[in-house]
Parts: sequence; structure tokens; C-alpha cells
Amino acid sequence: MTEPVDVGPLASPFDTDPAFPLHRGGKIEVRPTVRVRDRAGLSLAYTPGVARVCTAIADDPDLAFDFTWKSNTVLIVTDGTAVLGLGDIGPLGSLPVMEGKALLFKEFGGVDAVPICLDTKDVDEIIDTVVRIAPAYGGINLEDISAPRCFEIEQRLDAALDIPVFHDDQHGTAVVVLAALLNAAKVTHRTLADLRVVVSGAGAAGVAVTDMLLDAGIGDIAVADSRGILGPDREDLTEVKAQLAARTNRADLTGTLAEALRGADVFIGLSAGRVDDNAVATMAPQSIVFALANPDPEIHPDVAHRTAAVVATGRSDFPNQINNVLAFPGIFRGALDVRATSITSGMKLAAAQAVADVVGADLSADYIIPSVFDRRVSAEVPRAVAVAAIADGVARLPLSEAIRRS
Amino acid sequence: MTEPVDVGPLASPFDTDPAFPLHRGGKIEVRPTVRVRDRAGLSLAYTPGVARVCTAIADDPDLAFDFTWKSNTVLIVTDGTAVLGLGDIGPLGSLPVMEGKALLFKEFGGVDAVPICLDTKDVDEIIDTVVRIAPAYGGINLEDISAPRCFEIEQRLDAALDIPVFHDDQHGTAVVVLAALLNAAKVTHRTLADLRVVVSGAGAAGVAVTDMLLDAGIGDIAVADSRGILGPDREDLTEVKAQLAARTNRADLTGTLAEALRGADVFIGLSAGRVDDNAVATMAPQSIVFALANPDPEIHPDVAHRTAAVVATGRSDFPNQINNVLAFPGIFRGALDVRATSITSGMKLAAAQAVADVVGADLSADYIIPSVFDRRVSAEVPRAVAVAAIADGVARLPLSEAIRRS
Repeated sequence: MTEPVDVGPLASPFDTDPAFPLHRGGKIEVRPTVRVRDRAGLSLAYTPGVARVCTAIADDPDLAFDFTWKSNTVLIVTDGTAVLGLGDIGPLGSLPVMEGKALLFKEFGGVDAVPICLDTKDVDEIIDTVVRIAPAYGGINLEDISAPRCFEIEQRLDAALDIPVFHDDQHGTAVVVLAALLNAAKVTHRTLADLRVVVSGAGAAGVAVTDMLLDAGIGDIAVADSRGILGPDREDLTEVKAQLAARTNRADLTGTLAEALRGADVFIGLSAGRVDDNAVATMAPQSIVFALANPDPEIHPDVAHRTAAVVATGRSDFPNQINNVLAFPGIFRGALDVRATSITSGMKLAAAQAVADVVGADLSADYIIPSVFDRRVSAEVPRAVAVAAIADGVARLPLSEAIRRS
Repeated sequence: MTEPVDVGPLASPFDTDPAFPLHRGGKIEVRPTVRVRDRAGLSLAYTPGVARVCTAIADDPDLAFDFTWKSNTVLIVTDGTAVLGLGDIGPLGSLPVMEGKALLFKEFGGVDAVPICLDTKDVDEIIDTVVRIAPAYGGINLEDISAPRCFEIEQRLDAALDIPVFHDDQHGTAVVVLAALLNAAKVTHRTLADLRVVVSGAGAAGVAVTDMLLDAGIGDIAVADSRGILGPDREDLTEVKAQLAARTNRADLTGTLAEALRGADVFIGLSAGRVDDNAVATMAPQSIVFALANPDPEIHPDVAHRTAAVVATGRSDFPNQINNVLAFPGIFRGALDVRATSITSGMKLAAAQAVADVVGADLSADYIIPSVFDRRVSAEVPRAVAVAAIADGVARLPLSEAIRRS
């Protein structure tokens, strides 16, 4: 007989899963950038000195860009309705993602981002709320808001505010997909205009990716949702999908995703669904497959590679990871640097080209997109975006001034 | 003849006033507390690892206190209607003050505070907006909102939310005034219950200070606004002032502030007005004068000292500065440490006693209140507030657990 051994309390998943200790206490903080060590410092940073700065800004609101944190800040706004692959988990459940986003904004863009997790799903209430809290911030990043509400919310906020409004699930994804596609076309010796593209998924990302590819000069795009190809024959479409059908599918394809893929050059998967291995095999020679569903791609990369020349996924454990982190920090960095009033199609196209160009001479079928840790991305994307903002007439500052201040 | 000397461009006030260079680019930033240096780190702090934390919180919302920044955060909410002595300068003009407040929250309380400058003055809209953005935050600090709107906003938000709501212009001021008065009474060998007090000003601070002194056991308080003593004879009172009149002025005084001061022990000035030197001279022997208007006290301290035993102001260049910085960081620190659902009268009284006790054996007529840079304040106030929160039944965590986690 031996004494029972005390093994201590049972291990909690909060201790055994390394994600939990890493998240304890959160992932971001608010810190002073000036130190107040004595009464003299306090009398400048706070009363009475601060009153002179307040008065100057009240007289000339543009001075807020110079003498407050406004010109370096973004609100990350969500209602928690479309969080990662988890769906509608509510505002509080989404907070770790928003903190993660804020962390990435600072790490990769030097942007100060504040999470706002909204306790409402009503479109009007969301818009009213964001407009009311916007004054102290230089931009709005919408995040994980379900379609089709996200389209109306972005459009109406962009119209109501004189700062950039950007739904990253739409446009961040679209920018990085285009960047990857620019290089995939290059490595397979085609031009964008030559490509016949099939997009699977007509949600936030599907709509934005399609619009971005159209803006980039790809004329032949068919979009499919879970019920098949979007076209004039479909009588079950929402307004957003009907509009998307009207500006795509110029070949008037009908039927299933598999039928659209026959002979297509590019497959872009932006749904949680699967795509049949045999259908992918019917694509044109040298096909390009972006299977971006996470964590389970629409087709396994090894299977896709049996017939495809270039394969990309959303995962970090395969080559060619399509990751929004390549886009959103630099896009906002560039927009904030020139105090842009909005983010134009030209700014997004410039960002995509800048991401693609970082790959440069190292381009190969397994390297069409840079690593998120490639510091050239953080340098090149903001510059390209700032130049495009000036060209598009949405910059408050000239580039020279932006550079002088940076 | 000599050549004209090039003295360069004319000096701008933005260069000559040291407040402006100090404010350039703002005074606060958002920083990661965890570093993401490689793919492994990214896969924990962001997808896919973050999804497990999100799911856990969606299943048990209380886990947000453990695994997000919520338990250490406060929203600083203003509509810019009563900023310092500047009045209604709008949301953007108020931002430097809110940044300063956030700086002080971190420096003196370790609290992560986020400025929200509201583009609305409507009471209902302010309340709706704050309720909707509250989920990711552990407390609400209302700031520089004009009276009487501030009373309704605070009461309704406190009822709507399960986190502390605290209007600093009211309660922060009240806590520090009470702390100073505790020591002023001690140094003049009186008890609070002995004191006859006159409060000048029936705005946010006047109401809150009066209520706090009543809670602390001072029975004889008369309040005067610019038209004279509040009492049953006054037919021009707002609802808030009529209620204040009903719970003060037990001697049924009528007339001017000067008439109230005759024989009074304590004068507390919380208005932008002046008080007549001769009226102060008619106060009781060993009188206590707190002339807190900023930057111009209601009576010059040197004049007050001709008859008063103890004089305090809001200024840092005279002894006995009554400064909210002594209260709000520690009150929220203590409330957040035990995850309090609100801030009770008991917590405010405990904070006042803790501030007063820091002075200890060094007490003198010129040292009734500690310096804001006295680190004992940051240690003692949170502990006293946390203990009071537990005693008042508003704490979610026991003190032992709060200490273990801190």
C-alpha cells in the first residue's frame, strides 16, 4: 500500500491550450506617448496648458490632425455577426479578434486601433453609433459584419463621414487576392485580360473580390453561390446578388459551379463549401486555384496541384498564403499619412500591385505572394496607397508633407 | 547700409508655446502587450488560435474579464459641452483633455482608457450610443458634460449597464474635497458633524460635493448659486436645484452667499464667480476656505488667509491643491480589480478617507492633501475602494482573488 499521490487540480483547457495564457488580460493596452513626471509636465499635458490646444482646435478643427492622436487612429467596428468561421457569436465573443486586429494594425502599420464591439445588429443603429463616435478617429475599419448588411453599412458610413471607411473582410481580401492573381498570371505567362475567372461565394468577400477583379480589367468572371452560377435565369437572388449577376457572367453560363469551372483559368473559393476534385480537373491547362476557405480549403492543395499550375490557400502551413494582414495595415497607414477622406478603387489597386511587386524576381509557382513578416510590404504598400490617394484627389496633405511629417 | 538679416519665418505660437510641441501627434497610443514575431505567434494571437478564445467567451461571457482587455479598460466619454473653463467647444476641441485624462488613467492607475468624443448633445442619443459601445469596456468615465444633462445621463447609464459609470466632474471632485475637508477639520480640531458648510455653485460639482458631504455626516450645508441661497423661498429653481434645496439649508437661510457665510465654518467655491473678501472675514474663527475655481480662485489665497485657518485651491502653485487626479485613477483601479458593477457612495467615501490618510502625521494647515505624485495615493485608494466594493456587494471578485491576479 502506498499513499495516494497528489497530482494537483485537473489541468484546465485554459492552461493546456497556449492560446488562453497568451490572451490572459488581453493583447493590447493604451499608453502615454509623453511622460508626466512633475507639476510642470502636468500643467502642459493637462490643465492649464491643454486648454490652449483645445481652444486652437475648436477654432480650426483641422488642427486636430496635428495636435491629437486622430491622424494615427482607426476604430475597429464589429457587431460580432460574422466572426471568422464562427458566425454570429455576439459583440463580446468577437473582442479577441478585434484586439488581434488592433495588435496587427500597430505591428504592421504603426496605426493605433481601438476595438468597438457593438451591442446592436440594427443597420441604422450601427450607422448612427459610428457617426457619433467618429470625431476622435482618423478611419473606420469595419470587421466581421454579416452580408448583405455590411454593404449598406459601409456605403452609408462612407457617405456620412469625411474619413476612410473600409470593410476589411471585403476589400482587404480583394486586395490580397488581386495581388496573388497578378503574380499567378505572370508566372503562367498570361495577362489579366486573358483570364476566365470563377468565383465561388457571393458574400462580402465574393462581391468585393469580383468588383476588384473587374476594376483590374478582368472581363470574364462568373460567380456562383451555393445554388449555382449567378445569372439572369436565377429568380432567387437578393438585390446585391442580382446586381452582381448583372455585371458578371458575360457568357450567360447557367448551372452548377462545376459547369462554370469547365475550361476556366482561375478558381477563387471564398465560401465555406467544397469543390469537386473532378471539376477542378476540367479547368483549362495551367489553371490557377485559390482555395481560401479557412481552416478547410475548398479543395486540398495536394489534390489541386494534380492539375493546377498555381495553388494558394488562406493557411500558413501551405505555400502562397492569402492573408489580409498584407493589406489592411498598409492601406490605412498610407491613407492616414495623407489624411485621405476615403479609400478609392485606385488606392486598393495600388496596394495590390505593391504587394505583388514585393515578390519581384523571386517569383515562382510556390511564391506568388510575400510573407506577412516581409518588412518590404509595410514600406511599399503605404507609399503606393498615399500616391494613389493624391492622384484620386482624396488626400488632404501633399505627399511631400506626409513624408516630412513621418 | 547692411544686408537685411534673414531671421527665418515668423515664429508660430505652435512653436513658441510649449503645450503645442508636446501635443504634436497626440499624447496616447494603442500598443500590443504580446509580440507576434513569427507564424506560430500569429496563429495563437490571431487565426486560428483566437477562435478558441472567442468561442469560450461566447459560451461564458464572464471569461471576457480574463481573456480580453475588458477588465482593465475605461471609456472616457464626453460631448464637449463643458470642457474645463472653456464651455461648449465641441467634441473635437475636447479631445486633448480626453487624451490627457487617458494619460493620467494609465500613469496613476494603470488603467487603459479610450477617448470617445461624441458628435451629439442629445441625452437619449448619448445614452444609446454609450450602451451600444460598452461591451468591450470595463467602466465608463463621463467627462465635461454640462449640467443638468450630466445627472440624467449618469443615472440612466448606471441603470442600463453592469459596469461602473462615474462622472468625474461630479464625484472625483467630491471625493477630493471630502478628503481635504477631513484633514482640514482634523487640523482645526473639529469633527465633520460640527461643521456648518456653505457651497457656492449648484452645477455638477456643487451637487455632487454637497451629496458627498451629506453622506459623510455633515448635517448643516447651505448651497448658493449666482442668485443666492437655495431654499424653499426660491421659485426660480430647476428640478435638480429644487431637490438640492430640499436636502440642505436646514436653518432655512435666505439671501445672498455673503449672508450664508456669516458665522460659517467652511466655504467651498465651485463656481466661476468671486466671493467678497469681507464676507469671508465674517466666517467663524478658524474658518476653512476652499476656493476651487480655476484658473482664478473665488478669493485670492493670501486674502483668505487673513482670517481663515486653512485655505485650498485648484492650483498647483499654492499649497493644498484639490486635484481630481488624486481620485479617479485609483477609484477605477479599485473598481476594476474586483470587477465592480457600479461605484457606490461607500466606495467614494473610502477613497476620500484613503486620500486623507496618506497625509498622516505630516498634517498641517498647509498640507491637508497629498501631492498627485505621492505614489502612496496610487497604492492606498484602489485597495480602499476594492474593500468597500466588496462590503457594498457590488464586486464580482473576492479581494483575495483580485490580489492574486494583480
